[in-house]
Amino acid sequence: MIEMLPPIPENFALGVCDYPEHVPWDQWKQYPERQKQLGLTYVRVAEFAWSKMEPREGDFDWQWLDDAIEALDAAGLRVVMCTPTATPPAWLIRKHPEILPIGFDGHVRNFGSRKHYDHASLIYREHSRRITRAVAERYGRHPAVDGWQTDNEWGCHSTTRSYGGASAVAFRGWLEQKYGTLEALNQAWGNIFWSQEYTDWSQIDPPFNMPTDRNPSHVLDFNRFASDAVNEFQAEQVAIIRELSPGRWITHNYMMHFNEFDHYANSETIDFASWDSYPLGQVERAPLTEEEKVRWARTGHPDYVSWNHDVYRGLKGRRAFWVMEQGVGQVNWAPSNCIPVEGAIALWTAQAYAHGASCVSYFRWRAATIAQELMHSGLLRHDETLDRGGQEISRMEIAGRANGETPARVALLHDYESSWVYDVQPHSQNASYIRQTMLFYSALRGLGVDVDIRHPDSDLSGYAVIVAPALQLMGAERAAHLAGYANETILVFGPRTAYRTPTGRVQEDGQPGPLRDLAGQRLLNFDGLRPGLTVRAGGHEVETWAESYEPIDADVLMTYDDGPLAGKAAVTRHGNVVSIGAWSATLVTDVLDVLLGEAGVAAMRLPGGVRVSRRGSTEIWMNFDQAARQLPDGTEIGPVSFQFRG
Amino acid sequence: MIEMLPPIPENFALGVCDYPEHVPWDQWKQYPERQKQLGLTYVRVAEFAWSKMEPREGDFDWQWLDDAIEALDAAGLRVVMCTPTATPPAWLIRKHPEILPIGFDGHVRNFGSRKHYDHASLIYREHSRRITRAVAERYGRHPAVDGWQTDNEWGCHSTTRSYGGASAVAFRGWLEQKYGTLEALNQAWGNIFWSQEYTDWSQIDPPFNMPTDRNPSHVLDFNRFASDAVNEFQAEQVAIIRELSPGRWITHNYMMHFNEFDHYANSETIDFASWDSYPLGQVERAPLTEEEKVRWARTGHPDYVSWNHDVYRGLKGRRAFWVMEQGVGQVNWAPSNCIPVEGAIALWTAQAYAHGASCVSYFRWRAATIAQELMHSGLLRHDETLDRGGQEISRMEIAGRANGETPARVALLHDYESSWVYDVQPHSQNASYIRQTMLFYSALRGLGVDVDIRHPDSDLSGYAVIVAPALQLMGAERAAHLAGYANETILVFGPRTAYRTPTGRVQEDGQPGPLRDLAGQRLLNFDGLRPGLTVRAGGHEVETWAESYEPIDADVLMTYDDGPLAGKAAVTRHGNVVSIGAWSATLVTDVLDVLLGEAGVAAMRLPGGVRVSRRGSTEIWMNFDQAARQLPDGTEIGPVSFQFRG
Amino acid sequence: MIEMLPPIPENFALGVCDYPEHVPWDQWKQYPERQKQLGLTYVRVAEFAWSKMEPREGDFDWQWLDDAIEALDAAGLRVVMCTPTATPPAWLIRKHPEILPIGFDGHVRNFGSRKHYDHASLIYREHSRRITRAVAERYGRHPAVDGWQTDNEWGCHSTTRSYGGASAVAFRGWLEQKYGTLEALNQAWGNIFWSQEYTDWSQIDPPFNMPTDRNPSHVLDFNRFASDAVNEFQAEQVAIIRELSPGRWITHNYMMHFNEFDHYANSETIDFASWDSYPLGQVERAPLTEEEKVRWARTGHPDYVSWNHDVYRGLKGRRAFWVMEQGVGQVNWAPSNCIPVEGAIALWTAQAYAHGASCVSYFRWRAATIAQELMHSGLLRHDETLDRGGQEISRMEIAGRANGETPARVALLHDYESSWVYDVQPHSQNASYIRQTMLFYSALRGLGVDVDIRHPDSDLSGYAVIVAPALQLMGAERAAHLAGYANETILVFGPRTAYRTPTGRVQEDGQPGPLRDLAGQRLLNFDGLRPGLTVRAGGHEVETWAESYEPIDADVLMTYDDGPLAGKAAVTRHGNVVSIGAWSATLVTDVLDVLLGEAGVAAMRLPGGVRVSRRGSTEIWMNFDQAARQLPDGTEIGPVSFQFRG
Repeated sequence: MIEMLPPIPENFALGVCDYPEHVPWDQWKQYPERQKQLGLTYVRVAEFAWSKMEPREGDFDWQWLDDAIEALDAAGLRVVMCTPTATPPAWLIRKHPEILPIGFDGHVRNFGSRKHYDHASLIYREHSRRITRAVAERYGRHPAVDGWQTDNEWGCHSTTRSYGGASAVAFRGWLEQKYGTLEALNQAWGNIFWSQEYTDWSQIDPPFNMPTDRNPSHVLDFNRFASDAVNEFQAEQVAIIRELSPGRWITHNYMMHFNEFDHYANSETIDFASWDSYPLGQVERAPLTEEEKVRWARTGHPDYVSWNHDVYRGLKGRRAFWVMEQGVGQVNWAPSNCIPVEGAIALWTAQAYAHGASCVSYFRWRAATIAQELMHSGLLRHDETLDRGGQEISRMEIAGRANGETPARVALLHDYESSWVYDVQPHSQNASYIRQTMLFYSALRGLGVDVDIRHPDSDLSGYAVIVAPALQLMGAERAAHLAGYANETILVFGPRTAYRTPTGRVQEDGQPGPLRDLAGQRLLNFDGLRPGLTVRAGGHEVETWAESYEPIDADVLMTYDDGPLAGKAAVTRHGNVVSIGAWSATLVTDVLDVLLGEAGVAAMRLPGGVRVSRRGSTEIWMNFDQAARQLPDGTEIGPVSFQFRG
Repeated sequence: MIEMLPPIPENFALGVCDYPEHVPWDQWKQYPERQKQLGLTYVRVAEFAWSKMEPREGDFDWQWLDDAIEALDAAGLRVVMCTPTATPPAWLIRKHPEILPIGFDGHVRNFGSRKHYDHASLIYREHSRRITRAVAERYGRHPAVDGWQTDNEWGCHSTTRSYGGASAVAFRGWLEQKYGTLEALNQAWGNIFWSQEYTDWSQIDPPFNMPTDRNPSHVLDFNRFASDAVNEFQAEQVAIIRELSPGRWITHNYMMHFNEFDHYANSETIDFASWDSYPLGQVERAPLTEEEKVRWARTGHPDYVSWNHDVYRGLKGRRAFWVMEQGVGQVNWAPSNCIPVEGAIALWTAQAYAHGASCVSYFRWRAATIAQELMHSGLLRHDETLDRGGQEISRMEIAGRANGETPARVALLHDYESSWVYDVQPHSQNASYIRQTMLFYSALRGLGVDVDIRHPDSDLSGYAVIVAPALQLMGAERAAHLAGYANETILVFGPRTAYRTPTGRVQEDGQPGPLRDLAGQRLLNFDGLRPGLTVRAGGHEVETWAESYEPIDADVLMTYDDGPLAGKAAVTRHGNVVSIGAWSATLVTDVLDVLLGEAGVAAMRLPGGVRVSRRGSTEIWMNFDQAARQLPDGTEIGPVSFQFRG
Repeated sequence: MIEMLPPIPENFALGVCDYPEHVPWDQWKQYPERQKQLGLTYVRVAEFAWSKMEPREGDFDWQWLDDAIEALDAAGLRVVMCTPTATPPAWLIRKHPEILPIGFDGHVRNFGSRKHYDHASLIYREHSRRITRAVAERYGRHPAVDGWQTDNEWGCHSTTRSYGGASAVAFRGWLEQKYGTLEALNQAWGNIFWSQEYTDWSQIDPPFNMPTDRNPSHVLDFNRFASDAVNEFQAEQVAIIRELSPGRWITHNYMMHFNEFDHYANSETIDFASWDSYPLGQVERAPLTEEEKVRWARTGHPDYVSWNHDVYRGLKGRRAFWVMEQGVGQVNWAPSNCIPVEGAIALWTAQAYAHGASCVSYFRWRAATIAQELMHSGLLRHDETLDRGGQEISRMEIAGRANGETPARVALLHDYESSWVYDVQPHSQNASYIRQTMLFYSALRGLGVDVDIRHPDSDLSGYAVIVAPALQLMGAERAAHLAGYANETILVFGPRTAYRTPTGRVQEDGQPGPLRDLAGQRLLNFDGLRPGLTVRAGGHEVETWAESYEPIDADVLMTYDDGPLAGKAAVTRHGNVVSIGAWSATLVTDVLDVLLGEAGVAAMRLPGGVRVSRRGSTEIWMNFDQAARQLPDGTEIGPVSFQFRG
């Protein structure tokens, strides 16, 4: 664990991602001055430039990058340098095709795009260290270089997990390391079921392509292994950069709502988290209804965006973070790619600031004229005129504000491992970890509350309310940790909490297992509701999931009105601990509203697309709707706009 | 063919599936007494326990199973023993990976779940016989062992057919055996079409992964081959059990609406059929509309369930059968898995009895705490308390009733081979063998009629009405067999009857080929209706399929009102033989109603989800709706309930 | 380029596709006389008959075909002979399995249907030439043989492109030939992006199965390579036929709306184009809404059918063409296969004539009784009675009419290469090259206008209006060519025109690049609209796509009313050049209506399914609706019917 850092930079700054290698020098050399004029501070370079840096093995060409950095420096810009390992070049892949990852379908993923490598490949690890060392030796102490980004978007395009090759071999070693004996592994996975017991480590494969369902414990451990491999891959680069680039910070640009590796563990070696924000593309890919997708098509969904701000701020404790790539127009990778409404770019920038970002760096300077992303927008059009997003940024007045603290009094617990095991057995077709956590997160945000998103095993002291929407994995240690807060803090558990032990089996004594004393209930039944099938609880419509409890020491706050669970408890309370078993946005909001009041956290019902966040002493009001809205104080907020107060 | 048996047991009994190997002995040993107290008679054990029985090749461990059987015996329970071949253990697969089956996509199906074997693998056959002999030698004469189940759910997870490896080799031999010469095969398959003629047996592959459609005759024979392989696989086990376990019965637990092998042929070697009934999961997978799926989500669809009862009763003639696995709550394998409404478990048990079951055995005792099925319900919850289903069973009063005869006077003809060739060329996207047969079956059940489902080539004497909904394959012999009943029995043929010869070609003299004299018509045209495209016939709305006839000796009962076939015959009658060409629930019901009356079979129009069946002298009235309904005699039947009368 | 030919035949004739090898000789020998009596002139034979011609390598059997041709000749019929290369026989595939193509999923496509070959396979090329020589030597000078068809439906079932094997090798050679150096290729493809630069030709693979998107330039060149391979494959056959069958014409039967190879280039070596018209199957596969699919289910969509007539007439300049296969009832390959309404077969025949066809040849004589197509209709039923389609043909009076000129004054530009690059990056889920071109084509046809569909680089002189709906690839040469017409002709450009250079990169100076002076505008923004998201322009609803322009010298004809592009130009005009950026059927119709009037091309708003075409001095009015319609002159046209006037 590295030492805590102050916000970088101290005051809110803007940046941009640029690719000098994509543009002829005579043309590109005009860019730094224009970037400076637009109010930008940081320029990220060299992200995918391995084949330009090292066209043939051991044959390096740095001139172009030396020139670019000099030009940026001359214009007074600060450089964010990258390791180019997201794109191993053709000569390397032809020499070592075993670097290529193997997809869930069993097919090798070919060269010709990006991220075509298995993180567990020892051969690729060696080349990753080699090129990292080369770049860090060259630029690690360059005065213009402010910090580093490792690789690009770990795991993008389902590349976290490779279902064969180097990963298959390394997985066996990882398991032997973890379990020591096959007896322990067989027990942990419940392999007696369906005669899945192993008698030799070499019998174990990645979990894919079986006649029917995979053992969730097998999947859980494979996901843990793959997550560890990504983290080790990064740690190797970080160690080299720390050695060769002293005093510089290191970050990584994570992705929206991506959960294929454990970001908490991943971020341990870096200084702060960054993420890549494309609110419009996100809407298309999010589990929203068609109506919601049309509604938020041009502004992004406020909570789906801010979820990521809050996750990445919380990754290393309440630490400032960056938006490393902020979309400024259409993306090119969603099924349909529309453009944002006027005001959205500024609103997203304000929203990032409001949630604690230190810097927002736009993607990208000039729209690419080549290859896969040539339909993606930039601040400049292909013809180098300033595009709509660039114009909007030039009119903004957000940069330079103090990067103050965020004051959340509510913590929401987020656990990647729980998400893996949830999603391998969702049990109801509309249920997913992301939908269930967003149910609670959106309720809190709609109540005007600031939320820290934190790992369940982290230090949670000081919060008034702790909400665990979908904490499926629960061992004795975690249960004791959470119980430690129950005297002074209100704890809220969502459906399926503590369903399983840490190895993905079910609690042998029933649910919620080691949390039973704390919650004061035991799980009776769970009901996976198909689309169109609903029940009611306390007058609220419940969809997707309903579970019932038998109170032991708890009080029953709400029961089911109808359906097979009629009369059984849907919500219980035991001291400060509330268990919510019903999937219902209105029920969750009602329950949380009461609890927040009790905990002294001001809550209010915000209209439509209005959200509020606090940073330092400033309140930032935001309206994501394309119509004006009335705020709680009676004043009006215009469509797609924000107000800084205080 | 084995000898006819009396019902086993004589009076209706209950059972349960249990897995002693999943639970520590000290915990499990309490179970038999609780099972007995719940009124259960039979306990099925050892179903998937190969790796527990034989942890390493040749190294057997029987102690745990000896103990379990003793404990069951001591509690007065009867044991159903299994062969564990549905789950070849890891050591066997690593030694002989060629046992693994190859999917329709050409990929090997890996170890890690179940059913991962090619039935045609000679290596696996040897191990199947070896483990069967070991189990049968150990327990074949144990006094507590009442009977046997072979393997588990033949063909589950699309494993009937392996598209390469051992099956590819065996398929060639099977073809040579069947046809003798390639000339005969080329003729039977019509291989002159598209130059598909073979000049060497080694040129023939399983039918998959071609640029376009597969030859239906090729598919038909491959499916026959694969079906035969399953049947031989079972026959080898049965022979060993008969040798080593004299006086015990043998059954197999078939699946709902599964048609990938010929169950008539498969059941020849066993004593009676069993099947596994999961009415809620079935609703999700059945070809029902979204509205219907919501309607029957918590009760199951009455006719989709009873179809299976009637199929498995009829498999070996009118012989008693078991429900080997009866779901008692949620399953874990449907897209969404809800729980049944109060009363449903008892209703399903009554329904099974009503349709002729001798025993209903519930799945499973305690909900699994490990691996793939840990979200599946049992009679006990994970915490060993009696779950909703268990409580419902404890209140039932069905066990002990006499296992009397079922008195159906209507036979519905069911033919697996016709289903294969129907579904390889459905021609209309909503058409399928199952939907077309259910159209007729539901009409009969909605008219309050008991139905025997029988193979078309079986002895059909004594029936008042014989309905052949979708008998697509028709040779001269089959036609003559059916014609033999036409003097005294009403015969009803559905669309696409006798479209093809036994090798899957079309009748050279047009349809219905050898049935033409009997039906007194010839097929004019068939019209595959897309969703939203309908026509009318005799005032009825027709969807999915419409075919027209030219009467030869037949009378026209109904013509098409509109569409391209307007004015042409939709329904014809020639003596006792009626041909229905229009896919219409109301038309089929109207026609059958009249014919039943003529045949002296009492018919009535039952309301909504009400059904009636007869067993011995008892009438069993059932209501699958969640509201009370009025019965034809004016009395009321409560929601999700049943009444025994007489 | 071969010499221009007069229409073949001079007067409109009918034909049929027949397969003597499918029917026993004694039965088949009755057919020629019946064909003659039905008014047919041409019979196409031997299309897939390789295994019958050459049952074993080098062992030929011609007797059956000699007999068939003699019988056809004796009946006064003319023979269309085929090369049987669409179906390499089993013995050849087993000897050379490397002939089999590799699908986009990386799996080999197996023997057992048709089109199972890689066009770039040198081994298969040799056998293709060998069998072509054998057939041409045998029948090339037979007096009954009028002409030839090569193979069958190039590229059918996605077989144009093979993603490995021979094609992978040949692709590298093709690239080296085209680019000379890797530097040139890397530049053309923009391989600096994501380090995709190649340093050795052997590093280049077909573009498939990567972690994420493929480089559009990579895809474009691979598609060009694959197209060239098909064309070379045909050219080799054509050269042999020309040598051995002097005086006979050669054609190929192309497919509906198929764009996987460049048909302009392909047709260079043949005399005229033919195509296979299955209007009902086409409706199911076309990008129409569910409502539209129901509406046109039984008549075909008038414009989707006529598009193909106009494409294939224009392929080699305004040259007569054939419909080689005209469906006469249901097909067997759509998701649902209904039958046409009364009158549709005659209407399609009249429509073919109206659009310039010389001959319509029906598919097929007798419905197949064997294999994959046994549910496909023919003129005869399986029982050899004349089916509905055959009866309709027997009553038609179209054959014998003069094969006059078609007088279109409007040209629509069609470019296969633009379609490839459009569809690899559609950017909006409902956008596709076919939908965008049909938007303009249907607007023109709905205005009663005859349309020539032409290659953009062909001689376009003499047209009053030239419409380029989706000409995405634009180099300086093409731009100059088009500019050459702008003085005297109105040019209309649709969205995304000139977006890219000929190698699939974006115009470095922005869009429309070299067309900027001509169009007088520059592209500002494009907006990919998701389903349900619309904007308005000039009062018209715009869906799927909206792009805005900055006028340079152009006038703004229409602006966007709302959305992010509000106030920006949606339609501009610069002299004779109009740019339409908004995807809107009503907007396009309104703009074209005005421009046609200005150009002196008579336009009128036709009701519903009514269309009109002109041939020679005859006007052909057609009604595809199943209700009568009023024509512009006040007279009525019956449902599904046509009128010849003048």
